[in-house]
Order: sequence, then C-alpha cells, then structure tokens
Amino acid sequence: MTKVLLASRNAKKLDELRRILVTERVPGIEVIGLDEVPPFPEAPETGATFEENALAKARDAASATGLPAVADDSGLVVDAMHGMPGVLSARWAGRHGDDQANLELVLGQLTDVPDERRGAAFVCAAALVRPDGSETVVRGEWRGSLARAPRGRNGFGYDPIFVPYGETRTSAELDPAEKDAVSHRARALRLLVPHLGALASA
Amino acid sequence: MTKVLLASRNAKKLDELRRILVTERVPGIEVIGLDEVPPFPEAPETGATFEENALAKARDAASATGLPAVADDSGLVVDAMHGMPGVLSARWAGRHGDDQANLELVLGQLTDVPDERRGAAFVCAAALVRPDGSETVVRGEWRGSLARAPRGRNGFGYDPIFVPYGETRTSAELDPAEKDAVSHRARALRLLVPHLGALASA
Repeated sequence: MTKVLLASRNAKKLDELRRILVTERVPGIEVIGLDEVPPFPEAPETGATFEENALAKARDAASATGLPAVADDSGLVVDAMHGMPGVLSARWAGRHGDDQANLELVLGQLTDVPDERRGAAFVCAAALVRPDGSETVVRGEWRGSLARAPRGRNGFGYDPIFVPYGETRTSAELDPAEKDAVSHRARALRLLVPHLGALASA
Repeated sequence: MTKVLLASRNAKKLDELRRILVTERVPGIEVIGLDEVPPFPEAPETGATFEENALAKARDAASATGLPAVADDSGLVVDAMHGMPGVLSARWAGRHGDDQANLELVLGQLTDVPDERRGAAFVCAAALVRPDGSETVVRGEWRGSLARAPRGRNGFGYDPIFVPYGETRTSAELDPAEKDAVSHRARALRLLVPHLGALASA
C-alpha cells in the first residue's frame, strides 16, 4: 500500500475528504492523517488563490514527511462580491474559523442584493505533491445561489446559506452522501483520483 | 443662477462635496442640498457598480424636483479582495454606516495579507442628471495601500486605514484641503465641472 498524507487540520473537512476518497476506492492507496505523522511547521495561508494555498499546504506536508501529500483550499465565491470571500472565506468575519459569524456577515453584506444577483459557487482547489517534487493541482466548483437566512445542520462553513442549482435545500440540508456526490470538494478530489492511482502503481 | 441639487444624505460626504464644488467655483451655479427641497422617495442602493448607484440617486432627485441633480457613490476597492468592499463599502460589517466596524473588519480580513499585496483605491462615481433626462457619469480614483491599524481623525469611512501613494499618513491624517486636492471625490467632481458650467450657460 502507498501511504498518502491528507494534510488538513479541519476535522469536518478531513471527514469529508476521507469519506470521498474511501468512496472513490483508489486501489493501492492508504490515506493517513496529520495525527499519524510527527508535527511539522505549517506556513500561514497567504496565497492570492485557492491553488496557491492548496499547493503550499501540500508542499509543507510532503517535504516534512517524505510522503505524497494531498491538501485542499476551499471557499465561497460570491458573484456580487467579485468572487469574495474566496481565499478569505475562513476568516471573513475578521478571525479564523467562526462559521456562524462568517455566514451571518455575508447575509448582512448582501441584504440589499436582489435575488437575481445572489449567484455563488463553492470552489475547492486540491493539490497533490509527490516525493519527487512533482505537483498536480485541480479545481472543483459547485454552483448555486445564496439564501436569505441559514437553514440546515449538516456540513460546515457556509453550507447553511448555499442552495445548489436544481435544489431548494441548502447544502446543510443535504445528507452527507448527497453532498459528496456533487460537492466542489468531491469534484476536485475525483480529478485527483487517476493521479493517486498512478502513485500506487508506480 | 442655475440651481443644482446635491443629492446626498451623508453629512460628512456632503461637506466634502460642497467644499470641492465651492473651491472649483463653477460660475452661475448655486448648489443646494436635500434639506432645501421637499422630501421624495429614494430607492435603495442595489446597483452592481458605483456608476449605477450614483445614477439612480441623481435620477430620483432630478425627477422628484425638476432640478439638475448631482449624486455620488463611493467606496474602497481592495486589490486582495477583487475590488470589494466596493459598492458594499457602507454596509461591509453587515449594517449600514458603521465606519469603525467596517474598517476594523477589513483589517481583520486582511491580517494574513502581506504588505506587497495591500494595494487599494478609493473610487467615486459622480452622476449629473439634467431636467431633460440627459445624464453624465464620471469616475475618480485615488490609489494607495492599506495600513495595519487605523490612524487619524479627519475624514470619514475608511480614511483612517488608507495611505495614499506617495504618503506615509493615512487620508484621515491629511487635512481637509490636502485631501480635497487629490481625493477620488475631488477627481470625479472636477470631471463634472465643465458639464455644470455648460448647464449654467445653457
């Protein structure tokens, strides 16, 4: 089995990434977490793009451990905000990781934005960095629009205000398997699957 | 004298607009404020651009009063935020007009953004709508970068965190005459001066 390090400290995101990779059943790959390797220094996320941040995280993990490493950077991209919160999604309300404050702030900012201009997407960049230093980075997008109030208890981040196209429920009202079938993170990871498979057979 | 209605309810912005127009000394023009005309309904600012919002305000004022009307829409455009807060500048922290909360939120959101990517601009669109329905809209920009903490007590809005190019002071540390010489609002209004002059001589 080829070990691949999944470099995320966000427990809910890690669950989702693992669940997707298990569903995709890449033969010959064993996914391990950061808790199974010695601690290493991680650079802050200061990139201007999701891709830069995903690559930086995967590079840190690969160079510290010698293992192939997968990392993602994800966020909400709001049309009426020219793509913001984007790479600032996690600290939109001014400090890191307060999901409730972040989504309430977005709703407040968009109070005067009419329904026809509330389009948005979840975006995920997923990077694979190999022990030989070669890199692959892919992007998955999930289009939808923003609700006027949060609904649902599943997922995390901005899930309670994101209504995927073709749905009336928010992504926090989908059950995890439904979300995994179509989410930005699933779409990105699926693009990495052939590359992970190639690692195993190399 | 041709009366021109300056359609703003923001007292500090109104001061600044009046000061600039007085300095520019457009002959034959008398600038009056919204307090000198009967109240009229004003549409909420829901445009996607500064220009749309400025035009909407000037149109409301011109059609309600029959006077030529000037209105502006202004905001802070942050490079690392793809141009946001932009048209949402006034309600960035989630409710309208809390300058302190708005600028502190921007500082919090940009905590991890390094100095070389803290470029920003103040942008002002100024619209003139004439009694015959003809319209002119212009744009002034003032480039600079964002400080890491607020400084200065002059001005309003995001002035305490905006450092104009070539300056070490924030725009809230400039005195009003210094700001008027170079600000986004001054640049936009100066572009309107010939149009206002033409009104007076028509």
